[in-house]
Amino acid sequence: MAREGIKACVFDVFGTVVDWRGSVTREGEALGRAKGITLDWEQFARDWRALYQPAMEKVRSGQMGFVKLDVLHRMNLDELLQRHGIDGLTEDEIDDFNRAWHRLDPWPDVVEGLTRLKSRHIIATLSNGNVALMVNMAKRAGMPWDTILGAEVARHYKPQPGAYLNAVDYLSLEPQEVLMVAAHNDDLVAATDCGLSTAFVARPNEYGPDQDRDFEAIHDFDYVATDFCDLADQLGCP
Amino acid sequence: MAREGIKACVFDVFGTVVDWRGSVTREGEALGRAKGITLDWEQFARDWRALYQPAMEKVRSGQMGFVKLDVLHRMNLDELLQRHGIDGLTEDEIDDFNRAWHRLDPWPDVVEGLTRLKSRHIIATLSNGNVALMVNMAKRAGMPWDTILGAEVARHYKPQPGAYLNAVDYLSLEPQEVLMVAAHNDDLVAATDCGLSTAFVARPNEYGPDQDRDFEAIHDFDYVATDFCDLADQLGCP
Repeated sequence: MAREGIKACVFDVFGTVVDWRGSVTREGEALGRAKGITLDWEQFARDWRALYQPAMEKVRSGQMGFVKLDVLHRMNLDELLQRHGIDGLTEDEIDDFNRAWHRLDPWPDVVEGLTRLKSRHIIATLSNGNVALMVNMAKRAGMPWDTILGAEVARHYKPQPGAYLNAVDYLSLEPQEVLMVAAHNDDLVAATDCGLSTAFVARPNEYGPDQDRDFEAIHDFDYVATDFCDLADQLGCP
Repeated sequence: MAREGIKACVFDVFGTVVDWRGSVTREGEALGRAKGITLDWEQFARDWRALYQPAMEKVRSGQMGFVKLDVLHRMNLDELLQRHGIDGLTEDEIDDFNRAWHRLDPWPDVVEGLTRLKSRHIIATLSNGNVALMVNMAKRAGMPWDTILGAEVARHYKPQPGAYLNAVDYLSLEPQEVLMVAAHNDDLVAATDCGLSTAFVARPNEYGPDQDRDFEAIHDFDYVATDFCDLADQLGCP
């Protein structure tokens, strides 16, 4: 337990802060209407996300040098478009759809909860998303981050230790002074292994019908909260 | 001229955004009262700042590996304390005084101007100050940065090109879409050489009686503004 000494809260973003599934589905449906493409866009969103970890693994394993998540998202999108035989999109249309990940909507408690947490703590992203993706997402949705940390400034994708320890170093804090907030048990276990404090916030609808894990904390994390406002309550943020 | 396509404004901080001289003088005077040290603290502040470029030059030249500005500030503070024969401070007191640079006050137009610029553009630091210094300064003063960029995430101190080009890359923009805002002609010339757009904002009282330059733009920058609110006017930010 590190309840007294938390100075910064750092956040996983995809799934924890934003509803990627609903948002990418919305963007896909809009594209489908505009271009006359009939697809199960919710399945498309989940398929796109399913290619996320394998793509990052190419970087983590050293098979590829570090590239921004935008680049990995685009590789994966090209693969999915080919899989579905979709070949009527211009380069600009594909690029814009790839930036759907810059336009994800937060869960309903996020902006209020972050604003409260910011009153007493540094709040920052610690996501595998790249800086521009995070900045654009935050500006669109009004997320009041103090700064953007994470994979791109660390040159390491989570759950590699460098991703967590680099954020701690940028903040010039001790690991236990930094609270990693995530909806994913494995992310928090990796943060724990680096000495960070941890908070689990369940997002049981992240994957919709496919969700088969992370309904609850299955390790002994420092905080378990129902949403960001509950976390603000627990941290004493008015 | 790049007036139509500016997507992000990035800012030099020491002197351009904050009054380091007045703020470090205030911190020195408070320390002097608490510890019974009689000194010309305004001269001390200017002497401390005078060691700034030579310290960074050790990193830029490769004589030292990259270290955070907090570390360089501390090296320089230790040198000045020794020069003045001040040996009655504890490690905690010296460390706290070194963090005076985290507690610098903005010029009066800054928070309003940044808030207006943020309504239409990404706003970020592009300072040689480290991430924690910038985050702590911003939280204390209410500066609403979208993110912190600059030397530490670039691993290059300005005016090395890597400092500017790395910020452009993190933002996933073209250089001309990024407007470098500074009170220093040489910073803006270096930014121009990297293809960035440029805005000069004079801070004629930065150095007080020692100031011998940067009273006006002496190159053909894209914008010349009297303060950040004037810059917001010129960029059409309500």
